[in-house]
Amino acid sequence: MNETRLYLDTLTKPRGSLGRLEELAVQLAGIAGARPEAILKKAVIVMAGDHGVCEEGISAYPPEVTPQMVANFLNGGAAINVLARQAGADVYCVDIGVNADICHESLISRKVGKGTGNIARGPAMSREEALEAINHGIEVVEGLFGQGYRLFATGEMGIGNTTPSAAMLTVLTGIDAEQTVGRGTGIDDEGMKRKRKVVHRAIAVNAPDSTDPLDVLRKLGGFEIAGLVGVILGSAARGCPVVIDGFIASIAALTAYRLAPNSKAYMIASHASQEAGHRPLLARLGLEPMLDLKMRLGEGTGAALVFPLIDAAVLIVKEMATFDSAGVSRA
Amino acid sequence: MNETRLYLDTLTKPRGSLGRLEELAVQLAGIAGARPEAILKKAVIVMAGDHGVCEEGISAYPPEVTPQMVANFLNGGAAINVLARQAGADVYCVDIGVNADICHESLISRKVGKGTGNIARGPAMSREEALEAINHGIEVVEGLFGQGYRLFATGEMGIGNTTPSAAMLTVLTGIDAEQTVGRGTGIDDEGMKRKRKVVHRAIAVNAPDSTDPLDVLRKLGGFEIAGLVGVILGSAARGCPVVIDGFIASIAALTAYRLAPNSKAYMIASHASQEAGHRPLLARLGLEPMLDLKMRLGEGTGAALVFPLIDAAVLIVKEMATFDSAGVSRA
Repeated sequence: MNETRLYLDTLTKPRGSLGRLEELAVQLAGIAGARPEAILKKAVIVMAGDHGVCEEGISAYPPEVTPQMVANFLNGGAAINVLARQAGADVYCVDIGVNADICHESLISRKVGKGTGNIARGPAMSREEALEAINHGIEVVEGLFGQGYRLFATGEMGIGNTTPSAAMLTVLTGIDAEQTVGRGTGIDDEGMKRKRKVVHRAIAVNAPDSTDPLDVLRKLGGFEIAGLVGVILGSAARGCPVVIDGFIASIAALTAYRLAPNSKAYMIASHASQEAGHRPLLARLGLEPMLDLKMRLGEGTGAALVFPLIDAAVLIVKEMATFDSAGVSRA
Repeated sequence: MNETRLYLDTLTKPRGSLGRLEELAVQLAGIAGARPEAILKKAVIVMAGDHGVCEEGISAYPPEVTPQMVANFLNGGAAINVLARQAGADVYCVDIGVNADICHESLISRKVGKGTGNIARGPAMSREEALEAINHGIEVVEGLFGQGYRLFATGEMGIGNTTPSAAMLTVLTGIDAEQTVGRGTGIDDEGMKRKRKVVHRAIAVNAPDSTDPLDVLRKLGGFEIAGLVGVILGSAARGCPVVIDGFIASIAALTAYRLAPNSKAYMIASHASQEAGHRPLLARLGLEPMLDLKMRLGEGTGAALVFPLIDAAVLIVKEMATFDSAGVSRA
């Protein structure tokens, strides 16, 4: 990292004037253990799962939208497909817990269950299921690593999944549900009141051990959240940077960090979502998002928009002239 | 714009959830007068000029860096070359007032003078020179428009040019020099004191008419600033969006806006520069930057990083499935 920092200062620009692109280059150097000069092959892993808590009326969209959107991902018509294509990244959609049978040659089937239990009445899943879902995430990364992918982004789809994320955030950090519950895909004020009550009830009913991230995950989380924990841990274990998307991906990142603090060095926070709890969550995680485009879509869309910035950080290092090579006077 | 707004609401995402990408799509619709579905051919126009005020010791770098960096642009080794290449944009470097004779087949020679006068002692240029420089900017856009370019970005190079920009900003808006003077390429505290005094002196000596943007430009500005005013006006006149880079490009944008308020609809503010005066300047102009990456390099580097976001806004409109086409239930 120091070598890259010093090298950046020899390039034809005022010292530090490329700001966060330079910080990114230094982080990539730390991850790779070398000056970053190769464009990394990119995959967006979209984990999809359903949520029993939808029966409490906490989402603006009906739960059948989860499998419908999975089909949309597989057919290339969703926002993440468009943005990933533009960034030269491939999208891999994983059914880790959708409450429907989906058949498609491109789907990665890793179903742990047909949706989680309703967290307002009991745990989302068993401890074994949580571990299984994490393991699927790790194995998906392993498979893609074997195909040459070296940069991963965390996407998700799961109608209802801001509710478990808010509940997990409240338990893991102590931040009140007033701050962690947001509008998700767009619920109204009545829905917000209901959602907050559901979060309080889920925490009371399940009494998760806040010092045990796996307990919090399995009682309040979701299959796709657990899968993303695995994606993050798997990326870190393989020495690959992993781009954290929005609110749901960030709660997976916080969980991964609590399980394995070293994984944080591999995380790149992509954007500040409009979802209420995201900024306090990133602040607790100690990550600063690259973008603030007032987005709140998920799927990995914020992460995909950061891919060009990561490439830019590499290309600056690889292609810029130095003061000496260009014959430019120094300050 | 309304048609595009309504169309965006039919795409498979919660309404408004792509945030500023959607706003950008709507702005592009207004500029084109049609739903934006074509990737625009992109040019970064880098206007280069020197500044007599450098003799007051207001810059961290010596003035010979201006022609040295022009050579760097022409040889493809500067940050803007790297970032433009990545974004699929071409860089055109215009010598509009460099204090050196530069010969290069790729240079666009539009020299109005060999550097401006020292604004601490008199006007930067005559009114005729200011108009000539603006006209060069318009003509460069005209020429590139003829070659099929439909999206322009404003770049600049001119050692010393944050000083004239700060002076112009103070006069045009009444914001005190304490807020408009920044560290430029990186001067120390002593240099900052000197720079503020120079700005005060330049305003006192020249007594520009704050209600006459051309008078402010010609007395306190620079050839490259005037050239960029022309680039912005030329883009707007041709119905092309123009991406405003950092502090210097934004003072050109404010000048263009004062001369022709309708030009604002064509402007896209790229990033919030670290240069002190940039945020108050954008606020006065009523533009919200897309990015905040703590950059302060100029050259059009911030603008080039916004090109992928503009393409993304177009591709969302062009390629995303609708709720009906994908068979996804609505909220």
